[in-house]
Amino acid sequence: MSAYVDFEPVGRRGDCPAGTSLLACARQLGVGLVGLCGGLGSCGRCVVQVLEGEVSPPTSTEERLLGRRLAQGYRLACCTVPLGHCKVRVPPESLSAPQRTQVEGEDVPLIPDPMVRSYRVTLSPPSLEGKDLLADADRLLLALTGEGLSVSQVDLALLQSLSPRLRAQGWEARACVRDHELIALLPADVTPLGLAVDLGTTKIAAYLVNLETGHTLSARGMMNPQIAYGEDVVTRMAYARQSLAQATRLQEVVVEALNQAIAGMAAEAGGKAEQVVEAVVVGNTAMHHLFLRLPVEQLAQAPYVPAISAALDVKAREIGLGIAPGAYIHLLPNIAGYVGADHVAMLLATGAAQTEGTVLALDIGTNTEICLNHRGKLTSVSCASGPAFEGAHIKHGMRAAEGAIERVRLTNHRVEYQTVGGVDPVGVCGSGILDSLAELYRAGIVDARGRMGEHPRVRNGTDGREFVLVSEEERGGRPAITITQKDIRELQLAKGAIRAGIEVLLEASGISAQELELVIIAGAFGTYINVESAVEIGMLPALPLERFRQVGNAAGTGARLALISRSKRSEAQAIARRVGYIELAAEPHFMLTFARAMALG
Amino acid sequence: MSAYVDFEPVGRRGDCPAGTSLLACARQLGVGLVGLCGGLGSCGRCVVQVLEGEVSPPTSTEERLLGRRLAQGYRLACCTVPLGHCKVRVPPESLSAPQRTQVEGEDVPLIPDPMVRSYRVTLSPPSLEGKDLLADADRLLLALTGEGLSVSQVDLALLQSLSPRLRAQGWEARACVRDHELIALLPADVTPLGLAVDLGTTKIAAYLVNLETGHTLSARGMMNPQIAYGEDVVTRMAYARQSLAQATRLQEVVVEALNQAIAGMAAEAGGKAEQVVEAVVVGNTAMHHLFLRLPVEQLAQAPYVPAISAALDVKAREIGLGIAPGAYIHLLPNIAGYVGADHVAMLLATGAAQTEGTVLALDIGTNTEICLNHRGKLTSVSCASGPAFEGAHIKHGMRAAEGAIERVRLTNHRVEYQTVGGVDPVGVCGSGILDSLAELYRAGIVDARGRMGEHPRVRNGTDGREFVLVSEEERGGRPAITITQKDIRELQLAKGAIRAGIEVLLEASGISAQELELVIIAGAFGTYINVESAVEIGMLPALPLERFRQVGNAAGTGARLALISRSKRSEAQAIARRVGYIELAAEPHFMLTFARAMALG
Repeated sequence: MSAYVDFEPVGRRGDCPAGTSLLACARQLGVGLVGLCGGLGSCGRCVVQVLEGEVSPPTSTEERLLGRRLAQGYRLACCTVPLGHCKVRVPPESLSAPQRTQVEGEDVPLIPDPMVRSYRVTLSPPSLEGKDLLADADRLLLALTGEGLSVSQVDLALLQSLSPRLRAQGWEARACVRDHELIALLPADVTPLGLAVDLGTTKIAAYLVNLETGHTLSARGMMNPQIAYGEDVVTRMAYARQSLAQATRLQEVVVEALNQAIAGMAAEAGGKAEQVVEAVVVGNTAMHHLFLRLPVEQLAQAPYVPAISAALDVKAREIGLGIAPGAYIHLLPNIAGYVGADHVAMLLATGAAQTEGTVLALDIGTNTEICLNHRGKLTSVSCASGPAFEGAHIKHGMRAAEGAIERVRLTNHRVEYQTVGGVDPVGVCGSGILDSLAELYRAGIVDARGRMGEHPRVRNGTDGREFVLVSEEERGGRPAITITQKDIRELQLAKGAIRAGIEVLLEASGISAQELELVIIAGAFGTYINVESAVEIGMLPALPLERFRQVGNAAGTGARLALISRSKRSEAQAIARRVGYIELAAEPHFMLTFARAMALG
Repeated sequence: MSAYVDFEPVGRRGDCPAGTSLLACARQLGVGLVGLCGGLGSCGRCVVQVLEGEVSPPTSTEERLLGRRLAQGYRLACCTVPLGHCKVRVPPESLSAPQRTQVEGEDVPLIPDPMVRSYRVTLSPPSLEGKDLLADADRLLLALTGEGLSVSQVDLALLQSLSPRLRAQGWEARACVRDHELIALLPADVTPLGLAVDLGTTKIAAYLVNLETGHTLSARGMMNPQIAYGEDVVTRMAYARQSLAQATRLQEVVVEALNQAIAGMAAEAGGKAEQVVEAVVVGNTAMHHLFLRLPVEQLAQAPYVPAISAALDVKAREIGLGIAPGAYIHLLPNIAGYVGADHVAMLLATGAAQTEGTVLALDIGTNTEICLNHRGKLTSVSCASGPAFEGAHIKHGMRAAEGAIERVRLTNHRVEYQTVGGVDPVGVCGSGILDSLAELYRAGIVDARGRMGEHPRVRNGTDGREFVLVSEEERGGRPAITITQKDIRELQLAKGAIRAGIEVLLEASGISAQELELVIIAGAFGTYINVESAVEIGMLPALPLERFRQVGNAAGTGARLALISRSKRSEAQAIARRVGYIELAAEPHFMLTFARAMALG
């Protein structure tokens, strides 16, 4: 008897022969599960979560590698055999890079209660004979009053097309109302859609959502085209400050990218961009400001204050966003100059702010924002962790594209690795870099101070000492792929910044790392890393693995929640108000903490 | 002893020799008072109102010509001698054309309570050391919360300049708040201004108002530049319907004219256009739609319904109006396709809607809107009176420019007239045309059916029979200025349309003209006509002269009231809702009523 397996949220499903492991099933169905050991159960990377259905009992390997996580249904795909129909969740961190779209995020079930409500109306046309000469908009507003609504404003852009549209639709329509304003008119049988956007410095995630059901219909991940004007926010702000034209350009490239994504997603969902009647955008404070073309002088210079932190609603057309002309974009509140609305969205999505326990939530990136919730008291910091974990400033670093080494394991003198797409290696991406450093440290090849010792694969290269991941011979004569001493220094700066941020937060709350009940890791990079490696090098505190939770693009999930739920939107504002912000630059002992945190282990 | 005389609202004042008449004083001070008889007291046109100070007692001529109006301080300037300091009001209808700016309107004293309130704030700057890193806008909103306000939104355009502005102003500012939105930030010692506009088909009147005192600081009258695209609303709507570009052009020319006027008025008042933080615009429904670039298809075709009648608030920048970027334009409500917000503003300014008596209020123009208030029940009609009274379609007709005959009197075989500017005549403007017809009818030269009889000055011209106002000889050989039989037919159509509208309203309310306690005449044309002439030809019902009141640009005054007072703005909405509209085209007996109303007398 074969088993029918449904892999979520990838959306691949099908029959697998009896006795086949979930890993084999996944590969057969085209689900890119990570795995280094080839299904031997030794690398422990192919972690999945069984949501429904009966599977084979846990093996001793799984008991050892997964511990308490077994109780939550977590299993190693290579050790688990489905015994009938099952539903299996593939966590983002277990996905091979080609299948990551930066839009993976946990779904939070919610009864939709969006800002924009729609009402189907059927109107009688005006008539000279019938002495019914009510104006078109007034006629519509009167019908909505009949629904118990109090609508007193009509969006100007909508009004500019309302009269011909009502006639073309035969006086039937779906009227979209936001607060007391009529903002859009759709054909009567069309569903209003919403757009949620996580505007990252490097990547943008966009989601098209059915506002009535709350379901995500389509999602896209894309590079932030502002990268052409600067890799990091500091460079981009400097670019924007040079002229209004340059600031406008930064805004335009993002809007163009979003407009393409919206059109594509709408087509995929069988709809039109004009059906999108509300948008929620989150991003870090710099992305937020550049998106709205707000001044960044005061943000780029001490004391680094935003033009605004409060939540904002702006007309989509003022930004040039190609959705319904009367639609609003809601911007969730920022917290500080370097802690933006994406952090608020992440806290909203993960529930990290709502617990009475002690929870740490991180969004690791070029800037890493960290929030500690200690018994309801929220404190956040922002660490300049730099782009090393994204492959930048690393000799053979690269983005997670085809041929990037994404997982690494040292066994005796051998280097085991997995590349994106399973092709020949061409470089190392973030998770591979992190694995490499952790393995080098674990094997004693690199000491706690980050110095590279002696080893058959360590040599003096053109840039000083280096560890050979893939040698010239192994690459058929092409240059070797190495991790250099300089790379390790870069990684120490990055991980030190993050760990120092964590230490400042713990110290400010007077608690030790061991008191952390849960560590939530969100965001593009953190989601796909091997947490064991991060703990190994001391980037994250040494806690039992089951206390870590990798949640994917939680900022994107938070944006979606705020899109479909008024109460979640209010909650986001309440969270932003509750968060106390510590500016690390103003902490007297910060440099010392940072220096200490650079040590490995 | 000389007398110091202050002429209002013209703003001319100075000493006059003892014993000089007010007419002589006025001429000496450059006040263009009308008068035909040269100060003999026989034409009765130089009517003024003595507001303050002692003057000579009324003559028997004044008692005969002014009757009960004497009790309200009305006097003939040629018969009145100031006996000390006095303040004298020159009503619009007594002003010679060069001094009319189409902005004259009665002032209504009011305690200002504008939609936009301003608050002076002094902020402490952010500080890294002081750990005060509140965002700029949040800092400002917090200060406003301290004033007991609940401000939750910040205008995007304002936000785009807020941060540098706060720093440039040393953290002191005047914050302008509208409802819950921060819309503008002015220097701390600057007064917020408002703009009121009466957007007429032919003329535009604009007023710059101090929002705190309610005083009008500057006013401008100008031609509506849309005239280049069509003299009347029907032609202009046809032009707008041809393409979006053409519709946009119509909007742009008006906005450009307004922007020039705003800049000029602001400079005159010693301020800047950016100080203008709120605008109110009124106009007929077509002007309203073209100004907002709303569709006009449904307005131009039966059943002639507006896209919207309800009041609207739109961001000034969406229209391109060059005032504070975050300012709103409030559009008062329309009533119907041919009864617009200007009519509502007129009713608001004149109080015609608030009385418990029986009042008729007219705004005479190319379209004449008439409202009858019979014991609180308001009913309005719109009559297509055409442009004849504005000099169009009249053989020697012209606008009230220099050389236009503006007043006419027939004495035996002589024609007495006054021209604009006192120069040689070149044509006849509206008030002169009306006077001419009334005098011809009074003298029996034209009969009740409008047929021209025999008279020494009647002859057969190239266009049929005509009455010679100024002959070739009197013009030194240049062509004569005449009133033709065809002109009279045009005037009959115009006056017939207006009178028919009045009759329909009286009939609908079941009352006779004699029951009208007050007839209010507003607007550019009606304000400057000789009411006696209008009654003589039967355009207006034959009522005692003291029942007529010429109020100038009441629509402009209404716009100013709605600008400075929230309660007046609400009142305007209440008025618009109360007005019942009769579409004359749908009245079964209208053509008969119209045919009857064309008869003179």
